Amino acid sequence: MFLGNDMITIEDGKLKIDGHDATELAERFGTPLYVMSETQIKNNYKKYVDAFKRYEEETGKEFIVAYAYKANANLAVTKLLSKLGCGADVVSGGELYIAKLSGVPSNKIVFNGNCKTKEEIIMGIETNIRAFNVDSLSELILVNEIAKEMGEVANVAFRINPNVDPKTHPKISTGLKKNKFGLDVESGIAMKAIKMALEMENVNIVGVHCHIGSQLTDISPFVEETKKIMDFVVELKKEGIEIEDVNLGGGLGVPYYKDKEIPTQYDLADAIINTILEYKDKVEMPNLILEPGRSLVATSGVLLGKLHHIKETPVAKWIMIDAGMNDMMRPAIYEAYHEITPCVIRDGEKEKVNIAGGLCESSDVMGKDRELTPIEVGDVVAILDVGAYGISMANNYNARGRPRMVLTNEKGVYLIREKETYTDLIAKDIVPPHLL
Amino acid sequence: MFLGNDMITIEDGKLKIDGHDATELAERFGTPLYVMSETQIKNNYKKYVDAFKRYEEETGKEFIVAYAYKANANLAVTKLLSKLGCGADVVSGGELYIAKLSGVPSNKIVFNGNCKTKEEIIMGIETNIRAFNVDSLSELILVNEIAKEMGEVANVAFRINPNVDPKTHPKISTGLKKNKFGLDVESGIAMKAIKMALEMENVNIVGVHCHIGSQLTDISPFVEETKKIMDFVVELKKEGIEIEDVNLGGGLGVPYYKDKEIPTQYDLADAIINTILEYKDKVEMPNLILEPGRSLVATSGVLLGKLHHIKETPVAKWIMIDAGMNDMMRPAIYEAYHEITPCVIRDGEKEKVNIAGGLCESSDVMGKDRELTPIEVGDVVAILDVGAYGISMANNYNARGRPRMVLTNEKGVYLIREKETYTDLIAKDIVPPHLL
Ligand SMILES: Cc1ncc(COP(=O)(O)O)c(C=O)c1O
Ligand SMILES: Cc1ncc(COP(=O)(O)O)c(C=O)c1O
Repeated sequence: MFLGNDMITIEDGKLKIDGHDATELAERFGTPLYVMSETQIKNNYKKYVDAFKRYEEETGKEFIVAYAYKANANLAVTKLLSKLGCGADVVSGGELYIAKLSGVPSNKIVFNGNCKTKEEIIMGIETNIRAFNVDSLSELILVNEIAKEMGEVANVAFRINPNVDPKTHPKISTGLKKNKFGLDVESGIAMKAIKMALEMENVNIVGVHCHIGSQLTDISPFVEETKKIMDFVVELKKEGIEIEDVNLGGGLGVPYYKDKEIPTQYDLADAIINTILEYKDKVEMPNLILEPGRSLVATSGVLLGKLHHIKETPVAKWIMIDAGMNDMMRPAIYEAYHEITPCVIRDGEKEKVNIAGGLCESSDVMGKDRELTPIEVGDVVAILDVGAYGISMANNYNARGRPRMVLTNEKGVYLIREKETYTDLIAKDIVPPHLL
Repeated sequence: MFLGNDMITIEDGKLKIDGHDATELAERFGTPLYVMSETQIKNNYKKYVDAFKRYEEETGKEFIVAYAYKANANLAVTKLLSKLGCGADVVSGGELYIAKLSGVPSNKIVFNGNCKTKEEIIMGIETNIRAFNVDSLSELILVNEIAKEMGEVANVAFRINPNVDPKTHPKISTGLKKNKFGLDVESGIAMKAIKMALEMENVNIVGVHCHIGSQLTDISPFVEETKKIMDFVVELKKEGIEIEDVNLGGGLGVPYYKDKEIPTQYDLADAIINTILEYKDKVEMPNLILEPGRSLVATSGVLLGKLHHIKETPVAKWIMIDAGMNDMMRPAIYEAYHEITPCVIRDGEKEKVNIAGGLCESSDVMGKDRELTPIEVGDVVAILDVGAYGISMANNYNARGRPRMVLTNEKGVYLIREKETYTDLIAKDIVPPHLL
């Protein structure tokens, strides 16, 4: 029906999510409403496990999916993935807190980020995480120092900057020389860091790490990335340094455009596994870690908005829905495309419309020039593939409370996030006495 | 010292805000930290009142500043402005709630937005606000319907789309034909709406409204806007419709670039007043409403971040601070420029650096290629002019709690927003039983 959205069907002209009528969900829980499909998340996760089983079989090493919490750290979502056996890529104390609360075992937690604070490093060491993906010399020194103070040994992996072009949106390209992330390989900075670490008493070198960008729709940058990191592993071996874990980050794209097939977990697995196996005679095969975010949860999420007003201008027809940029920033910040469809498919000619949210800002437009079936005030509209980088970037702009969220499966519908109320908006505000 | 920031001084190489040492504030309240200067907000507000006094004197009509809450609806900020006599431009039930809580009299509240819901309209009518700035025919019909059900008469003004180019960032240009806002004048849609309203029993026509964009650094689009709206008032008069309020929206820019003087409230006042007065013989002079957001609060806000890591790459020197794009989205979403300065000005040669926040995203960069005085790990860095569209767009991306905020004046420092904790991040999340 829709590429990547196994959980969506259209029956008798009605959009259903895991068999539940979308319009009824909107009526029952109010709009805007995020709907996350448990079925779809499970499918996406299973594809990773399936596709990379061969890596474990052929190398005898571990394959770990460390879900990138930044994509969507709703507690029901992280719990679900944790129960399936999924690990966690965390980037803050907050995400580490949620990973622990979700029951992710410490040896499946990796900690990313270019500005880890002392408190976060302490928390990571106390948790005995699988690795800090160290982003700078400065961080390495701090981790060692803190571990020493604590009388512990911290596991470290090294995030390298491979200077690979991921061919995606510049705001989500992360592995270029000009980006803020990682230790440069070419100039020898990465090697210098690892040699420094060798001399340190309170760090334990476990791996190398890389993440080149997000929403990649071409496999070749992943191959290039894998080669660069494996070449570096070979170099390290020459220096007598054995690497246990190779972490290739996240980045696999999802089919936001429904008319364009893009590479799947299976294509990714083939490319990565074959590339790593080419190094079989040169180095000990490592454990393989991936940090997918988007490709695990994006396609499982739908944002429902109700149509409140229709406006004809001399140049366009606008439909105004109550799901806006504060609920889902991606169109405003990345000019992202999301498939949009009415939840009741009426007979009649399609018409070209712009779909706007209700915020007072021109970038609050969810879609332009979309050909939709006839639509009326009161109808519910679905914005697809919003499970990743949707609620996680939501905010209270225009003093709008963030929306409710439900989880669906074939058995039922479960409220997994409550709506923010007016009083929530000011719950953290304090008026000093002289202004009362 | 810094253009627009009266509250900032540098004494003995230390940055002070209303006389309070910025580094000490950071130590006392933690980082990241928003600092809002009461002094500066008062100065900015006074300039509006001062500059437009002549309008009241020459016309005998009212001048009202309706602060655009979307810029920063922290309760201490809105209370402060309300106490000074300032009105409110609200765009949601949430903002209306905050305006009422802040004690803004109902005849100084206007309600904007292209997707007002039934609940919001009811709330506005119950409050007896000065005007709904009606954005579409559909909204007009709904307002009348609801008012009828309630046995009330709702005050309406009409937001017109004047098709004026504000010469600013496209995401914050709002008065062009292609934008989602307003009723088109040229094609007669605006006139049609007002004539419809004349026939309606439960609406009371009070005004016309316009808002062409934000961060305008040129006065001429305001002149053009004023002419278009006054020409329309003349047309309305010919149809026998008297307009009491003319609302010209917000939009005046602030000096983000410290080497570039831009028009002030006084320049704006001259342009607008002189333009309106040209219509003295043609129409009854109206009350004048403005809806400034940015120019009231932007320059009063400073975001403090602590430097945790320094990284040299082959192409740049990066300093990593704990204030990031989740705290302040403007650089990431609008490629906005904000002045950045260390809070301790050390002797020595300036050096070119990039300033990054700690989020795992390449757009989380606060400034590029900035010439800063020597800076060390542990130092506090100030990002200026973040009082508008800073905290109001802040979010929990990367599971980071939104920061604390303090208000300063010459007498003291007052906590006006508490930090979000780890548990706050999941406070609205619910794990369904089958996932426990
Ligand atoms: C270090 C790291 N790992 C993993 C991810 C997840 O990427 P994606 O959602 O594209 O799979 C990101 C995203 O920014 C990242 O920065
Ligand atoms: C209708 C309306 N009025 C006022 C404003 C405030 O604009 P500024 O902050 O540029 O003064 C905005 C900003 O988007 C707006 O949409």
